[in-house]
Amino acid sequence: MSTITNENLKIQSLEVKDVRFPTSLGEHGSDAMHTDPDYSCAYVTIKLSTGLEGHGLSFTLGRGTEIVVAAVESLKHLVVGLTVVDIYKDFASFWRSLTSESQIRWIGPEKGVIHLATAGIINALWDLWAKLLNKPVWKLLSELEPEQLVSTIDFRYITDVITKEEAIEMLRKGKTGQEKRLEILKSTGYPAYTTQVGWLGYSDENLESLCRKYMKLGFTAFKVKVGRDLNVDKKRLRIVRNTIGYDCKLMVDANQVWDVNQAVKWMEQLAEFQILWIEEPTSPDDILGHAKIAKELKPLNIGVATGEMCANRIMFKQFLQAGAMQFCQIDSCRIGGINEILSVYLMAHKLGVKVCPHAGGVGLCEMVQHLQMWDYLSLSGTMEGRFIEYVDQQHEHFQDRLDVRNAHYQAQQFPGYGTTFTKDTLIKYEYPCGTEWQAMFAKGIYSDPRK
Amino acid sequence: MSTITNENLKIQSLEVKDVRFPTSLGEHGSDAMHTDPDYSCAYVTIKLSTGLEGHGLSFTLGRGTEIVVAAVESLKHLVVGLTVVDIYKDFASFWRSLTSESQIRWIGPEKGVIHLATAGIINALWDLWAKLLNKPVWKLLSELEPEQLVSTIDFRYITDVITKEEAIEMLRKGKTGQEKRLEILKSTGYPAYTTQVGWLGYSDENLESLCRKYMKLGFTAFKVKVGRDLNVDKKRLRIVRNTIGYDCKLMVDANQVWDVNQAVKWMEQLAEFQILWIEEPTSPDDILGHAKIAKELKPLNIGVATGEMCANRIMFKQFLQAGAMQFCQIDSCRIGGINEILSVYLMAHKLGVKVCPHAGGVGLCEMVQHLQMWDYLSLSGTMEGRFIEYVDQQHEHFQDRLDVRNAHYQAQQFPGYGTTFTKDTLIKYEYPCGTEWQAMFAKGIYSDPRK
Repeated sequence: MSTITNENLKIQSLEVKDVRFPTSLGEHGSDAMHTDPDYSCAYVTIKLSTGLEGHGLSFTLGRGTEIVVAAVESLKHLVVGLTVVDIYKDFASFWRSLTSESQIRWIGPEKGVIHLATAGIINALWDLWAKLLNKPVWKLLSELEPEQLVSTIDFRYITDVITKEEAIEMLRKGKTGQEKRLEILKSTGYPAYTTQVGWLGYSDENLESLCRKYMKLGFTAFKVKVGRDLNVDKKRLRIVRNTIGYDCKLMVDANQVWDVNQAVKWMEQLAEFQILWIEEPTSPDDILGHAKIAKELKPLNIGVATGEMCANRIMFKQFLQAGAMQFCQIDSCRIGGINEILSVYLMAHKLGVKVCPHAGGVGLCEMVQHLQMWDYLSLSGTMEGRFIEYVDQQHEHFQDRLDVRNAHYQAQQFPGYGTTFTKDTLIKYEYPCGTEWQAMFAKGIYSDPRK
Repeated sequence: MSTITNENLKIQSLEVKDVRFPTSLGEHGSDAMHTDPDYSCAYVTIKLSTGLEGHGLSFTLGRGTEIVVAAVESLKHLVVGLTVVDIYKDFASFWRSLTSESQIRWIGPEKGVIHLATAGIINALWDLWAKLLNKPVWKLLSELEPEQLVSTIDFRYITDVITKEEAIEMLRKGKTGQEKRLEILKSTGYPAYTTQVGWLGYSDENLESLCRKYMKLGFTAFKVKVGRDLNVDKKRLRIVRNTIGYDCKLMVDANQVWDVNQAVKWMEQLAEFQILWIEEPTSPDDILGHAKIAKELKPLNIGVATGEMCANRIMFKQFLQAGAMQFCQIDSCRIGGINEILSVYLMAHKLGVKVCPHAGGVGLCEMVQHLQMWDYLSLSGTMEGRFIEYVDQQHEHFQDRLDVRNAHYQAQQFPGYGTTFTKDTLIKYEYPCGTEWQAMFAKGIYSDPRK
């Protein structure tokens, strides 16, 4: 039974906190474009009158989180006071009431700050829904009837690629063999790849020893940052290939530093390292540019991956239509939460593109595992050629701990979306008032923004 | 002489205000998507140590303006303390320092809230530059040497369509005959069309009498909102054509309400009214969708116009590449200010697409006239088939009054970008503390957001 029937489930409050971790101190997460990220998030708490809370977050890189927090505050009035029964009954309409508020819409629409804020709110509502039903989000999703699941999606602007009816039909087909797949999922988990070996800020020695570490942990697919210096890239990729060999998969990520023609030329120089995909070769808005790069690199067996900064389902639709992405990297909080992400999975499935979620950031591994497991159970029905990014950072801050073993995400049973911070984390890392931040301000490691 | 040489021109402060006008009370500005806009803006004031001020604004629709204001506050530290000489000397690098701040970039990049904030700041710097040189922005732009003008543009992500060298070459050619064109511009002004006749909230009687009014004022091109109801659209367009006849130009604007196939079908039904363009038929992010609509409507002689919500130069680049816009509607504060807009003009010129700027909003007419006059003087060299939108609202709030006569924007001589509000306007309409807002709160016309 997947619906909530208690009419008294009113949303009493919506709170949002700015939470930041000082990751730039260790150059963790550094790439060619984002040289000093402090992994952060806008953290949304939606509380029912019963006291139950749902938590959602939108990943950010430090400065600017306060703007996403302000945007959540501005959307609050559209949420507080509603009954969750009414929301879940017609989730698509509620979703549109957030994304198409007649005045606020102008400052998006459905992109950037305001869409990150929407994602935080929507994700909190899914966490809450799953908690109400006492099951993990992947289970909630895979147990929803096709009609119910599709009723959460706003199909505006994507009906030229997929209609509601087609989506229902695809999900009906996906029900076949679901039980068998559930057994497989429970016993093996879902394959992961690691990005942890090759942040740009890491030394060559670190790179090599991390490759060895993650091979020992069972990983067979590795991703390395590139794009700052061609010779350095070659040197680093040689170290990686010498360490992991040629049986393992190797992907590279340029984080948008190149122009279109430059991307092609640079990657031609790296082809000798047998690259599965080049991720974010250029602007995340350049559909036609990615399509050109994909076409040029096809003879070299290099695919194009992108999606972590793809603004919304309309942009994803075109990337898929244009052959501009061979690997679709949905992100759990860049577009408007699960509702919109489901539509991307459906379009990718229809157009035959593999989804390999982005997860380099706070809470992203925690969330995307649910989506990808749902895809296996209910939509694509296969793990073939797909894996979830895995980054070993900030997991200790969540109440329900991620379980990645033998390079596989394990299907967990705790209720919700996995997005609840521990109390200790909020006390320490709320910005700028958390105790860890106070200590760093006092030591002069960071400067206090309030002074 | 177009450069500033005084080394003491330091930016002492950057202030931003939330300014709103209660336009929804009269259904001015209402369309199929934005039913109750309160024309508003984030208003940026950059002050030099000499006391001189530059003003820039980002147009918004009411709620949500506070988020853009927060974003400007977050970018402030990148501006205050700099010397404008250094900014204008290498404006492209300064522009990139705003749009690619290594942490803030994540919440865009270059789109939505953060890009609206960038626009406000950048536009204030152009206003200031022109005021320092005691000339209007159109004159400043058209007097800059090609190399200088091009040095303001960040070519990242657009070099596959236009390079710096090509741009310089185009602008060199544009110098030929500039003096003659300046004479023509001074005597005739630049042609305008009116959107004032057909907001969706207006009655049929109002529609007809406004058509007559604007015909008397010399207008020969009219734009009407459509998309809420097909029969109503037909009725309204019949009224308009019966009033203005078939010698005048007629455009329609759907403000993004349709899906791709729906847009084609709807417009086929309106073709009998001889429509020059359908504006914003679908999502502003749907390049491939617009391209399909444009292709389908070509046999009916209906062009596609879009741009007011086009997120940045990379999106414009693709619309132009894909044949997805026959009329390029640059907006003065959606993308990152004049620097980025210049790159769009250059790409449109290269790819043979006419620019007809969007101006339905606060301060937009004031700004775009400068850009379009520069295009005539320095780039396209023609007004043929081009006009500037004209909306007769909120002009009284600006210190330097817009001069539109005989349906032509007149080239004015006051220094700056035309974006300085009167003191009285700020006292009355700053939100929520302005005197007019206080009065409306007291009367219960609006509710006070602070309560």
